Amino acid sequence: MLIRAFLLEGKEILHRSKIPIMKINHSHLFNECSTMHLANWSSALSLDGIPADVRRIARRCLIDFFAVGIGGAKHDVAKKARDLAFVEYQDGNSTVFGSDHRLATTGAAMANGTAAHALDFDDTCYAGITHGTAVIAPAIFAIAEEINSTGRTLLTAFIAGSEIAYTLGKATGNSVYFKGWWGTTIYGTIGATAGAAHVLGLKLEETANAIALATLGIGGTVAGLGTDAKPLTSGFCAATGVRAAILAQAGANGPSRIFEDPRGFASMFNDGIFDSKYLDMMSQVFGLIEPGIFIKPYPSCTATHAALEATEQLMTSHDLSANIIERVICHVPKLVGISLIYDNPRTPQQGQFSLQFTLACMIARQTFGVDELSSEVLDDPTIRNEMKKIFMFQDPDLTERSTDGKVGPECARIKIVTKDGRCLEAFNSVATGAPTKPMSDDMLDAKFQCLTKHGGFGHKADKLLEDLHNLENIDRARDLF
Amino acid sequence: MLIRAFLLEGKEILHRSKIPIMKINHSHLFNECSTMHLANWSSALSLDGIPADVRRIARRCLIDFFAVGIGGAKHDVAKKARDLAFVEYQDGNSTVFGSDHRLATTGAAMANGTAAHALDFDDTCYAGITHGTAVIAPAIFAIAEEINSTGRTLLTAFIAGSEIAYTLGKATGNSVYFKGWWGTTIYGTIGATAGAAHVLGLKLEETANAIALATLGIGGTVAGLGTDAKPLTSGFCAATGVRAAILAQAGANGPSRIFEDPRGFASMFNDGIFDSKYLDMMSQVFGLIEPGIFIKPYPSCTATHAALEATEQLMTSHDLSANIIERVICHVPKLVGISLIYDNPRTPQQGQFSLQFTLACMIARQTFGVDELSSEVLDDPTIRNEMKKIFMFQDPDLTERSTDGKVGPECARIKIVTKDGRCLEAFNSVATGAPTKPMSDDMLDAKFQCLTKHGGFGHKADKLLEDLHNLENIDRARDLF
Repeated sequence: MLIRAFLLEGKEILHRSKIPIMKINHSHLFNECSTMHLANWSSALSLDGIPADVRRIARRCLIDFFAVGIGGAKHDVAKKARDLAFVEYQDGNSTVFGSDHRLATTGAAMANGTAAHALDFDDTCYAGITHGTAVIAPAIFAIAEEINSTGRTLLTAFIAGSEIAYTLGKATGNSVYFKGWWGTTIYGTIGATAGAAHVLGLKLEETANAIALATLGIGGTVAGLGTDAKPLTSGFCAATGVRAAILAQAGANGPSRIFEDPRGFASMFNDGIFDSKYLDMMSQVFGLIEPGIFIKPYPSCTATHAALEATEQLMTSHDLSANIIERVICHVPKLVGISLIYDNPRTPQQGQFSLQFTLACMIARQTFGVDELSSEVLDDPTIRNEMKKIFMFQDPDLTERSTDGKVGPECARIKIVTKDGRCLEAFNSVATGAPTKPMSDDMLDAKFQCLTKHGGFGHKADKLLEDLHNLENIDRARDLF
Repeated sequence: MLIRAFLLEGKEILHRSKIPIMKINHSHLFNECSTMHLANWSSALSLDGIPADVRRIARRCLIDFFAVGIGGAKHDVAKKARDLAFVEYQDGNSTVFGSDHRLATTGAAMANGTAAHALDFDDTCYAGITHGTAVIAPAIFAIAEEINSTGRTLLTAFIAGSEIAYTLGKATGNSVYFKGWWGTTIYGTIGATAGAAHVLGLKLEETANAIALATLGIGGTVAGLGTDAKPLTSGFCAATGVRAAILAQAGANGPSRIFEDPRGFASMFNDGIFDSKYLDMMSQVFGLIEPGIFIKPYPSCTATHAALEATEQLMTSHDLSANIIERVICHVPKLVGISLIYDNPRTPQQGQFSLQFTLACMIARQTFGVDELSSEVLDDPTIRNEMKKIFMFQDPDLTERSTDGKVGPECARIKIVTKDGRCLEAFNSVATGAPTKPMSDDMLDAKFQCLTKHGGFGHKADKLLEDLHNLENIDRARDLF
């Protein structure tokens, strides 16, 4: 089937091939390229056809987005993005978190995308290992306000964008991440573009062009973790999505066979591997459900979560305090080890990718929340002292079992050795917040209240939360803010 | 040396390694990372220390940039970028080609970067196979106007950005291109960032942060050729450079060891290969000279140039016209074959990557210039008829000899068979415009006059050309326009 599709274009395609064609499993009907398939799926999506549980997860993602975006807007890096946006972009109709000003769509998307990822407290998906919502939601929200869409359209567009992002993550697989590519900048950007195209109501060909245009400006490295570059890039990717959709609406075109092209997406990012069977399954298997979305209870890398939770529970159940803990030994699979790279963090941002810092806070302060993300806490001698007690080991057995799916991909085994000679142990396969062990609605609402309060959003928070729970029935996106 | 540098960071680095460390040839002094090395070189650059021939080539690149930018601004895709910029960005001090309005820096860089590549008539460099100037120059020019720099600063910053772009191209090598990455979007963006940082006068650490920030938003595919995505992406990359520099100036930071990081630049783009000896040689070997810059006499892919020129010369010397030509057979190396992918172009943009279309114009109209880039010409039955006469073959012998450097990388052997039975043959190793066979100053000035006239720039062109020839002595960048 694949070869037949290629032959339609004759030798102009064949002589370009550098990669073995058969690596690309291209399963949809021949002569329909993946771009067109995605555009078709996204354009045709209507809320009535989407299962209720998918809609529910999407609403939860959006509640979380507004929480982390409004809370994150207080962060210094969000302020930098906002300052730049105010200097560069025109005033407009799109809300900028942390400000009373409204900006033109691209500027608002850039500022809000940065804010939403500033605390590294936003959701994430194991398909593509992608922080999708922080990129997709600001793009859609900015355009929805600009054209004053209904809540229904906003929610549908968000689901369209999310599904395209996570489906592409499945089609390439996580080898992309291990090579250094940060999925957020690849799948998130294309998801933002598709979502922006949906909310704009682009025609089929325009949507395909928007997706194709977006694939020319994507990519970014995992190596940015612990720096301002990470949240800023989320913002840039959201803006890229908006820009691609607007340009496609104005008639700009892109390379339609970008996923199949022997020098296109699959070749660049993944040595030619792209399994489009996941694209064909989009209406049967929703990424928001399978693998689902991890909504974080702690403002740190998901890799810290199982260890944080296990430590919290051991301390509570055994009534432990910092002064009786001698040592904490944490065994983790490789996926956790390659994310938590700062043994001795120098900034709070690095601290979010540090088992030592996060667990030290849990031991000394019995919590790890946004109040812990400060230089004062990081430089506190008490915390520095507790950090010395924390030891992390990559455990080949946990790596193997997590790869086989027998235990969670970011599990942790914690041993706390006390000064009085006890050795207390706990294994946490999956942290609360993960798709298979979600936060309750009450916990999510509490996260929303906490973060909107942190962001100084005050009394308006209750109305926004109510509106988000009831998003399908909101008539005008501008009424949300 | 490399391992010692890594050991300084201890196990937090070692356990991240997915790629064989030794692939990275990291030759500068240990504990100075490549980002800092580049920042150091760029910040310290002064015009007096730059050889006169480097300055001369840089001036030629800038003359060509203003020519193709002003001429390209008439193109439909440039208009789309400009329209978007006018909707999104604030008014400011930075010139927008094809308009009397001035915009904030990022918007102007985006619009002008698109315009400069809209005709695919801008310069290119074999180091990284990169259209550097179309990305670097608009970023620098936009900021130079904003802060009203001297011509001296503008020229120095352009050289700084260009050298960083082409040096990085050498450090990775052209395997990146063959995989599908479009060097312009990688090296061009980083060059634009470094140039923008230089013109802004950023401190050493800020410049390093700007470069690091820029590496999170780069990448784009060769597969975009023949579509609007290609010039639009040049514009986006120019804007990325401006944005990264401004954010770094505001204190934003990025991953400093981005080139060495086992999951950073080298791993993502090039299977871990990065030879930083080229970085150490920056003050000895200038990329603007070695390999040098290809300034195009024809508005089409450089891969068409040798064939176009050989055909033109055969026709002139043998007094041939279309009606006596039966067949044109063109043997080319692989590098040419993988670029000229449109045997049967459907748009003028595709026609620029078509040997059939470009040679048909040369045969039927005795030229290939901007007037040929129209649907009327493409759909002209005469041209369509001539296209059927053109045959291209990838020649393994030419591929081998071009790879060995015995003949030019984009050479062509042309055989014209006439209806009266003659077989006329010509081999063009290197086309005029290539670094080893540059256009004369008069030819470049003529290109400038032709394109500025095409762009409706009229009588102002003479003054601009004079100023550009005399750039070191211009006091205020704003006086250029």
